[in-house]
Amino acid sequence: MITLTYRIETSGSIEALAAKIASDQSTGTFVALPGETEELKARVAARVLAIRRLPDAIQPSIPEASDGPFKRADVDIAFPLDAIGTDLSALMTIAIGGTYSIRGLSGIRVIDMKLPEEYRGAHPGPQFGVAGSRRLTGVEDRPIIGTIVKPALGLRPHGTAEMVGELIAAGVDFIKDDEKLMSPAYSPLPERVKAIMPLVLDHEQKTGKKVMYAFGISHADPDEMLRNHDLVAKAGGNCAVVNINSVGFGGMAFLRKRSSLMIHAHRNGWDILTRHPGLGMDFKVWQQFWRLLGVDQFQINGIASKYWEPDWSFVESFRAVTTPIFSSDDCALPVVCSGQWGGQAPETYERTGRTVDLLYLCGGGIVSHPDGPGAGVRAVQQAWQAAVDDIPLSDFALRHAELARSIEKFGDGKAA
Amino acid sequence: MITLTYRIETSGSIEALAAKIASDQSTGTFVALPGETEELKARVAARVLAIRRLPDAIQPSIPEASDGPFKRADVDIAFPLDAIGTDLSALMTIAIGGTYSIRGLSGIRVIDMKLPEEYRGAHPGPQFGVAGSRRLTGVEDRPIIGTIVKPALGLRPHGTAEMVGELIAAGVDFIKDDEKLMSPAYSPLPERVKAIMPLVLDHEQKTGKKVMYAFGISHADPDEMLRNHDLVAKAGGNCAVVNINSVGFGGMAFLRKRSSLMIHAHRNGWDILTRHPGLGMDFKVWQQFWRLLGVDQFQINGIASKYWEPDWSFVESFRAVTTPIFSSDDCALPVVCSGQWGGQAPETYERTGRTVDLLYLCGGGIVSHPDGPGAGVRAVQQAWQAAVDDIPLSDFALRHAELARSIEKFGDGKAA
Repeated sequence: MITLTYRIETSGSIEALAAKIASDQSTGTFVALPGETEELKARVAARVLAIRRLPDAIQPSIPEASDGPFKRADVDIAFPLDAIGTDLSALMTIAIGGTYSIRGLSGIRVIDMKLPEEYRGAHPGPQFGVAGSRRLTGVEDRPIIGTIVKPALGLRPHGTAEMVGELIAAGVDFIKDDEKLMSPAYSPLPERVKAIMPLVLDHEQKTGKKVMYAFGISHADPDEMLRNHDLVAKAGGNCAVVNINSVGFGGMAFLRKRSSLMIHAHRNGWDILTRHPGLGMDFKVWQQFWRLLGVDQFQINGIASKYWEPDWSFVESFRAVTTPIFSSDDCALPVVCSGQWGGQAPETYERTGRTVDLLYLCGGGIVSHPDGPGAGVRAVQQAWQAAVDDIPLSDFALRHAELARSIEKFGDGKAA
Repeated sequence: MITLTYRIETSGSIEALAAKIASDQSTGTFVALPGETEELKARVAARVLAIRRLPDAIQPSIPEASDGPFKRADVDIAFPLDAIGTDLSALMTIAIGGTYSIRGLSGIRVIDMKLPEEYRGAHPGPQFGVAGSRRLTGVEDRPIIGTIVKPALGLRPHGTAEMVGELIAAGVDFIKDDEKLMSPAYSPLPERVKAIMPLVLDHEQKTGKKVMYAFGISHADPDEMLRNHDLVAKAGGNCAVVNINSVGFGGMAFLRKRSSLMIHAHRNGWDILTRHPGLGMDFKVWQQFWRLLGVDQFQINGIASKYWEPDWSFVESFRAVTTPIFSSDDCALPVVCSGQWGGQAPETYERTGRTVDLLYLCGGGIVSHPDGPGAGVRAVQQAWQAAVDDIPLSDFALRHAELARSIEKFGDGKAA
């Protein structure tokens, strides 16, 4: 049994809508098939397991002429494994995709998905995940600290490399291309790799520390994406940014089977599927697909991000990617990002189960530190140290100058 | 220049939001880069070309605490080709995906996209399209008439083949698997192909008419999808149903390069991206990606469909897929479907530019005709004849028994 939970909203009958979803998305026949009907229904028909009523909506999620009331309920529907199998495109098509087209609803949001034992082992899952991220960066007992090369677009390879040299010297563990940077004419990936990888490898040779650089390899054509992958791997790189939503299940599945790189997922485009609370899908559901397909590191925003996403939603996403589907091996490393500078370390630590198993990605929070990126990295490490030791940032900053300067610049006086 | 038009909604400043979209989605730097800044901005920065104010929204599209007013405008933003290139995943990521995450908006919908000359020839486009659909079915001067095997799920291959035999005998031009049917345990694709293709080929040998059968070959793994493709092609099949949204750009691009089959696109899952008028994307924008990737036949619902989509939206979709992006070769054959039985032929014909270049897909409208599927096919052909000849259906039905019976059953007395 595959069980989905839908939050539905309708000015009609909740019970009828629930039954319609189950019917439309499985046998949904318009021809009576005497004899065979009962057997096939038993084999593949979806069934409504439970309906939990919720308070009415004040406004319909999708505007409509009706005056309401707009009844709401969470509905569990079970699909026999036989109806879907273990293919993720079938799962998406049958259990989710088709439900969005149904007439007579003013809202539908998929809020949970429970996969059966048969899915265990049916998909590659992360190749590296949390343990691999630790092993490849050599970072233990604290978050992996990362940063992003900016501006997003426009730097030529030599300009990018200059900046990367400075960031490596600053002591970051991880650096990435902005997700919007793939292989444009002014910075073709081969040239960018050629400019950056020697810096990474030189530093490794000198210090033993290999900074993980995530190159933007996404391409709509999987053959091209694989070529991009290969040239990063051949140059000694170990990580790639993949815009999962723009390459789709197919791009991701194709890459994963052939990949020797850590897959760092940017979910660009995802927001429109979740931003309206009455429509689309919870991240908890969506991320299961991508983890089964093989995402190692999953960008999920952070506390006080610069995007629309509220903190509670980030906290739920963190829990989602770190909760095993079948085993801890299928968890992705949470990438906490957007507007981070260290000031959010205590709240992040507190609200995500007091773990340091995360990649903490700061853009301006490191690069724009008043005393330079090196001080920026140290400030972020200090903030995390304070968080883990339960020391207020403002106290810790008394004996840690970089953190103090960071609070001055980014904290608006309310950093603790 | 790639030009996108966004319908934006905000309780803040429209001008500031427009500028933010342009900045965030291109250079979006947080570091001043003395010297290089101006040059790179000129090269890759997106620019707001025009802002056309619209009446305020009464309610915010995404619920928010603010009381409004919720200002709205259509905003044209131009991206230099240099910023994006011609890769469709870069286009989706930069020009569309990222905009959905921006803070401070209560609605955003991408309503137009104009691609520059550089995109001409940069993508495979449809391999067969309209002309190929006509050539392979041998149907001229009228719509290609198709039907769907139902129930959606549950029939074993022998049961499917029985039904297909009946439908072939009925004289349809095209038959397809329900989009939810791919290769489940009770009907593995190899067995389905083996059961069905001999019927298609026998009929071809006897009559010279090759019915186009579209097999559901979708799979999240492109290698698996290609295996499915190959076994259909090897068995003499010439068409495949692909759930484009569930295989993604990567699956589609991979398949198209290796495909010898007509690609019949089902857009399952798409509705959530367009159903709320203030959010997501117009079909006009989205379908450009898929046509460039290679969709030959595009399902777009129809007049009085059984889904949520209003008739005007179907009419716009019809116009979209039949409007050249660069040339008529990149148009897809519109597949008019959902709840069709012939009664909608006159209105379809009238509102879509009086063309018969379409695949008219009737499920129950053919299969549940009171005198059987053969009468169902004839009734649909008669309805289209009447439409083209500008004869009211009720008049035409006086001398065409099958149509008369169809009106009796499906028309509720208001078929004309």
